[in-house]
Amino acid sequence: MKQILVLGAGRSSTALISYLLENATNEHWSVTIGEKDLQLAQQKFPEAACVAFDIYNTESSTTQIKKMDLVISMLPASLHVHVAKICAQEGKHLLTASYLADDIKTLSGEFEKRGAACIMELGLDPGIDHMSAMQVLDRIKSEGHELVGFETFTGGLLAEDTHQSNPWQYKFTWNPRNIVMAGTGTVKFIQEGRYKYIPYHRLFDRTEVIYIPGHGYFEGYANRDSLKYQDLYGLRGIRTLYRGTLRRPGFCKAWNIFVQLGATDDSYEMENVSQLTHRQFINSFLRYNPHDSVELKLAHYVNIGMESEEMYKLQWLGLFTDEPVGLSKGTPAQILEHILKKKWSLDPSDRDMIVMWHKFNYLENGEPREIQSNMIAVGDDSVNTAMAKTVGLPLGIAAKLLLQGKINLSGVHIPTKKELYEPILAELDAMGFEFSERKMEESIQ
Amino acid sequence: MKQILVLGAGRSSTALISYLLENATNEHWSVTIGEKDLQLAQQKFPEAACVAFDIYNTESSTTQIKKMDLVISMLPASLHVHVAKICAQEGKHLLTASYLADDIKTLSGEFEKRGAACIMELGLDPGIDHMSAMQVLDRIKSEGHELVGFETFTGGLLAEDTHQSNPWQYKFTWNPRNIVMAGTGTVKFIQEGRYKYIPYHRLFDRTEVIYIPGHGYFEGYANRDSLKYQDLYGLRGIRTLYRGTLRRPGFCKAWNIFVQLGATDDSYEMENVSQLTHRQFINSFLRYNPHDSVELKLAHYVNIGMESEEMYKLQWLGLFTDEPVGLSKGTPAQILEHILKKKWSLDPSDRDMIVMWHKFNYLENGEPREIQSNMIAVGDDSVNTAMAKTVGLPLGIAAKLLLQGKINLSGVHIPTKKELYEPILAELDAMGFEFSERKMEESIQ
Repeated sequence: MKQILVLGAGRSSTALISYLLENATNEHWSVTIGEKDLQLAQQKFPEAACVAFDIYNTESSTTQIKKMDLVISMLPASLHVHVAKICAQEGKHLLTASYLADDIKTLSGEFEKRGAACIMELGLDPGIDHMSAMQVLDRIKSEGHELVGFETFTGGLLAEDTHQSNPWQYKFTWNPRNIVMAGTGTVKFIQEGRYKYIPYHRLFDRTEVIYIPGHGYFEGYANRDSLKYQDLYGLRGIRTLYRGTLRRPGFCKAWNIFVQLGATDDSYEMENVSQLTHRQFINSFLRYNPHDSVELKLAHYVNIGMESEEMYKLQWLGLFTDEPVGLSKGTPAQILEHILKKKWSLDPSDRDMIVMWHKFNYLENGEPREIQSNMIAVGDDSVNTAMAKTVGLPLGIAAKLLLQGKINLSGVHIPTKKELYEPILAELDAMGFEFSERKMEESIQ
Repeated sequence: MKQILVLGAGRSSTALISYLLENATNEHWSVTIGEKDLQLAQQKFPEAACVAFDIYNTESSTTQIKKMDLVISMLPASLHVHVAKICAQEGKHLLTASYLADDIKTLSGEFEKRGAACIMELGLDPGIDHMSAMQVLDRIKSEGHELVGFETFTGGLLAEDTHQSNPWQYKFTWNPRNIVMAGTGTVKFIQEGRYKYIPYHRLFDRTEVIYIPGHGYFEGYANRDSLKYQDLYGLRGIRTLYRGTLRRPGFCKAWNIFVQLGATDDSYEMENVSQLTHRQFINSFLRYNPHDSVELKLAHYVNIGMESEEMYKLQWLGLFTDEPVGLSKGTPAQILEHILKKKWSLDPSDRDMIVMWHKFNYLENGEPREIQSNMIAVGDDSVNTAMAKTVGLPLGIAAKLLLQGKINLSGVHIPTKKELYEPILAELDAMGFEFSERKMEESIQ
């Protein structure tokens, strides 16, 4: 009997834990859920063994991890390092869906010494993005072609039948705070051999248009630092390298209004928040002028028409109403998140949709070639979301492969290696999370 | 014989040290200059006693400070706390022109116990701004009127006869880095009882127009946090409170181009800086498009005409030339500073100009009243600048008053108190740094 410990029973763990429990009998696994809030875990997963787990209590955490063969941490990213230290010391496999940080990288030798693997970035993004990109990149290279460009976009959206009356065609399908803060910092990428930089306040008017056959048009804005993928994916010398996020067309122009206002700022607490209405929140960022309406001042400030699509999107959110915000304190970003949640929370039957799209440009005997590939995943409802599945299933599959001995790795890794991405993608494909690929007739430069 | 120690003999200390040396005989002072670079100090001030001083050597610093009656620190602001700790411990007066930080505030009890005064913010801004504002604010209150608004702007500019061929009408007259970074962060102020916030990227298009009789029009942009002056100046409940920086008209619209590009970002190092030209620096922030010129892409991106005044200002700076930047590495802000210095450094005979302007609105028996006051100071040349004088002289005057026993204070202070601002402003006025005040006929709401 192999012992698996999943840390954290929140929303993001649902699909993962379901997968593990479904496979437990066949695979001879005993699945334990470690959660600070023991009651929550027992309520959500009555068929699983649940234990109280507090990572800040190192002694008891060590005792619990010692009994395990493999640990999957769904705790907040900053807490993984504490789990990793114990796993390294006790020689236990550890899987997470979070970015590999330096403090975990330094534990690689210790994991290796004890024959255990720590695999990070095993979710959707990072995760499936790495695996599906590297599979094509490695193939192009192995065929002897010269890679000249790689672009990749992922979006957590609503399924087409879900957003009918919602002019944003968007709701929060994952951590709302991450959505509100998305893009803060400076964006860096390479285009045609030139390093390019976009400051946050221009990010949402520097969008790209992406077309996916059968699914139509999307718009993409750049992610923070594409440059680091030069080394991560072995792409030094590539002429174009761009990672981004997908939204439905029109989203970015409307979202840009919040950025222009400063309403996504998380660096200071606003004054008198308990007295604030939606309308006053918007007015806080506009010039004082007793003769003009908040609507007119806003339209003028961000240069949109009073009857524009963007204005309608803001009205639909109730931003010009006298409804109290309903918080006692907060930064602009926290207050905006709170207002958006009133309209952007999933209804029980709402279905989300994950869209991942890659574009590979290369030279075949000097001739430009292009491959585009994409994966579309649609959720069942507001609990069994496509997001939870695409984040959880790569973790579950990797756990299975490790415990079956089909992956033989020790030390700290991310799934850019063939021995990881091949079997994981094969199983994802079999479960319906497949990439469709097309070679473009004419390369678009 | 009273012993005065001035720490730091850089550009900003020139006017202060001259003042102290001029008054030394009459006042029976011995003036010592403590400087890390002893040769620099001896060369600049051959008539003064110079000693090698290294604040990181606590023992020798303590030995030197022990012999003194009063210390004036012109060291970088972050080092004041080390000086303050020794002064507090040894019971020596300490004066600086820097903002009072919390780590120094906590030493107040110790200064007080030993009968010594630590007076911070004794320069121009902060310094003369506090003193000249509080003098009028206290007068309005003492006359029983109700204060409803206070606005204050200061600018370090060029004298009118200096900027003739310079379309920016601007050069660096103080720390260039502070100019390039000016305004980063979020601006907060109160207007007509409403809290208002401006994000950095909109700051330079939210300017105010200021008219000063005899000197014409200026434009002002808001300083970071005006709200803290509610408590500092005793203005709780005031309906309008706004602090800002003055520039010549047209400056902000052109500067805003750098902000829009992200060229003032100091958060990341650019790639391949050693290869970078001025033109490529600008192009790094623009879309890739091989068919359009950098000029056209820029004009379109920031929405200005190709023949506009702003475009001419950028051309005058040489920003579209193929001149190498001349740095091996740097953040956008560091590179921009380096490029600007090529054109914006003072020529030896260039004269700078300080402009300070206050506006006070109050109710006299319910009737709206307005007072405006301003101070204009012009430098002699690029060494004896108005900036160096207005920063250094309040320190020198405060030192004299303390040593003469005309100021009797202990503990940590800033010059918002009558017993400080009255005698210091009186002597500044006698030296030609006077405020002219006018009561407006019709209050402008």
